[in-house]
Amino acid sequence: MFFQSAVCHGYAGNRAATFPLQLLGWDVDVLPTVHFSNHLAYGSTHGKVYSSEDVSSLLKGLENDSMGAYDAILTGYIPNENILDIVSEFAIAYKQRHPNTIWLMDPVMGDEGRMYVEDNVRNKYQQLLAMADIITPNAYEAQLLAGFPVEDMKSAKAAINAIHTRYHIPIVVITSFADSDDEEKLRCMASMKIGNSCQPFYFIFDYISGFFTGTGDLFASMLLAKTAHAVGDLFHKITELRSNDIQLSSDDKQRLRQGFESAVGQVLTSMHKVITNTKEYLDAQVSKDPSLLNNQFLLNNARELRIIQSQQEIQSYECSLPLYYADPEGVEEGLKGC
Amino acid sequence: MFFQSAVCHGYAGNRAATFPLQLLGWDVDVLPTVHFSNHLAYGSTHGKVYSSEDVSSLLKGLENDSMGAYDAILTGYIPNENILDIVSEFAIAYKQRHPNTIWLMDPVMGDEGRMYVEDNVRNKYQQLLAMADIITPNAYEAQLLAGFPVEDMKSAKAAINAIHTRYHIPIVVITSFADSDDEEKLRCMASMKIGNSCQPFYFIFDYISGFFTGTGDLFASMLLAKTAHAVGDLFHKITELRSNDIQLSSDDKQRLRQGFESAVGQVLTSMHKVITNTKEYLDAQVSKDPSLLNNQFLLNNARELRIIQSQQEIQSYECSLPLYYADPEGVEEGLKGC
Repeated sequence: MFFQSAVCHGYAGNRAATFPLQLLGWDVDVLPTVHFSNHLAYGSTHGKVYSSEDVSSLLKGLENDSMGAYDAILTGYIPNENILDIVSEFAIAYKQRHPNTIWLMDPVMGDEGRMYVEDNVRNKYQQLLAMADIITPNAYEAQLLAGFPVEDMKSAKAAINAIHTRYHIPIVVITSFADSDDEEKLRCMASMKIGNSCQPFYFIFDYISGFFTGTGDLFASMLLAKTAHAVGDLFHKITELRSNDIQLSSDDKQRLRQGFESAVGQVLTSMHKVITNTKEYLDAQVSKDPSLLNNQFLLNNARELRIIQSQQEIQSYECSLPLYYADPEGVEEGLKGC
Repeated sequence: MFFQSAVCHGYAGNRAATFPLQLLGWDVDVLPTVHFSNHLAYGSTHGKVYSSEDVSSLLKGLENDSMGAYDAILTGYIPNENILDIVSEFAIAYKQRHPNTIWLMDPVMGDEGRMYVEDNVRNKYQQLLAMADIITPNAYEAQLLAGFPVEDMKSAKAAINAIHTRYHIPIVVITSFADSDDEEKLRCMASMKIGNSCQPFYFIFDYISGFFTGTGDLFASMLLAKTAHAVGDLFHKITELRSNDIQLSSDDKQRLRQGFESAVGQVLTSMHKVITNTKEYLDAQVSKDPSLLNNQFLLNNARELRIIQSQQEIQSYECSLPLYYADPEGVEEGLKGC
């Protein structure tokens, strides 16, 4: 079950997330929070934000439990507090009836210092976080949740610890932040907290220059599918990890940790390929017709994620990046292939 | 570009059509005409029909030709005359600017004697048909368009001829009608008219008992993709076939005809497998829990098309059915593998 923005054209919101999950074998129910003709970066967009009544009405049809239990609820871009209220009430009530349903909350608020939701959405997310099982903020969103800038290894690790401790979320993934050692790289840091114990890990990957929309939505959807694939029958145990009294053998804990570490690496590997395909397509279009660069519409169109054309890359469970652990002082401790 | 109904849950309208086309490599823009929580057969449905303003607003965002030309426009379930007006104005204007864009019109009006659109939608379709390149009525819709019942080979062939002649549509496919020789079979009859010449052909396939929603939407979307695949560079020539002065070598005409014949057979082969998978799943669910049969909601849920689980079957370009030609008197003339 998805709650995300919808567009007719291009790949952002649930348009970036639904197809990959379906390709990976998931039946996905989709509830739009907005319905736009195209995403906002085009400069010209038509359509509308759904009213609270629109969302409530659609939800009424879905709360019939005869539909079958959802393995997961994924929430993404929700532009205003009213709709976030309705969506979160649904998710919380649903999880009460089905405690094993995983809530992956992508707390979409902004990027690179710019907010793109109403101010009070941030406070609302802070109240809701304790109900989430997995969150996937970018560096700016992690900063909004942790209360301090996330800009390097040390602050990323501190933010993960703060979010784990303050909100009791089992899985935190900061999808990307700058690599202070190398400007051409980015890092992704993630952590699974089992009871009181966690060991943040990270990956270093190439920065691909350019502005691509929908990457966060694609990341979140692939993280669900690849984690489920990697940890198998333990997937729904993620909902129990916040308990101090967790019923898991140490073997299962290790399978869960290693599966999750591998899944994050797989997602980054797939993401890198999808963005590379997109960048190559964009460059080819620009070299064919350099006037693209002066037309915001054409340019945005040429850099829509090549999701449909990257099916193999999305379906792959390969991880081509080495995995690093962050030690308690925030310095690199070990290195291991995933 | 799609104009179809949208549902959050299950597979009907563009939910049944979008994923298959994406899987077959198409970038699809989707514009909903209704947004419901689930399809109508469930007995309980929430959501709403889009207003004319909603549809117009979204279209405004898409009529920027910078988006790139659409290979095809597919129109499906459009419940009322106002929205049909807006959608058809867009399609007609778009085809004036891009004459090579194919309009596949699925004139969704009803099935088995029951209408599920407003009455005046039928008149509107009759006015619009002359602008379509491909239409895919079921037997009841073919009857509404031709003016007489379509219930056997002879009447199907007469209906195809009447529709070709009256509305000048290059491709007509009657997706299914009863086989008067064998109650356990259905037939699909199709025809491509090139200039003044056509030779209707048909396939015979097993009737799978049960009521499945979204089959027409799945048929129409696969027909687009498999025809494009089978006829390759000649795909857009379909828009020129109604001209008496068509610029095509006889070799190309033959490639186009044979490709189309093969595509219809491929679609029926894939459809049969998807419905078989669905039926097997449904039967397994019912034998696990016979009380399903008394719960309309659960039952509808269990018979949602297994589209996500049938990716291989949808992607296959195999045709496992023999092709038959109908002779001018409506009796079988020849038999040939496709």
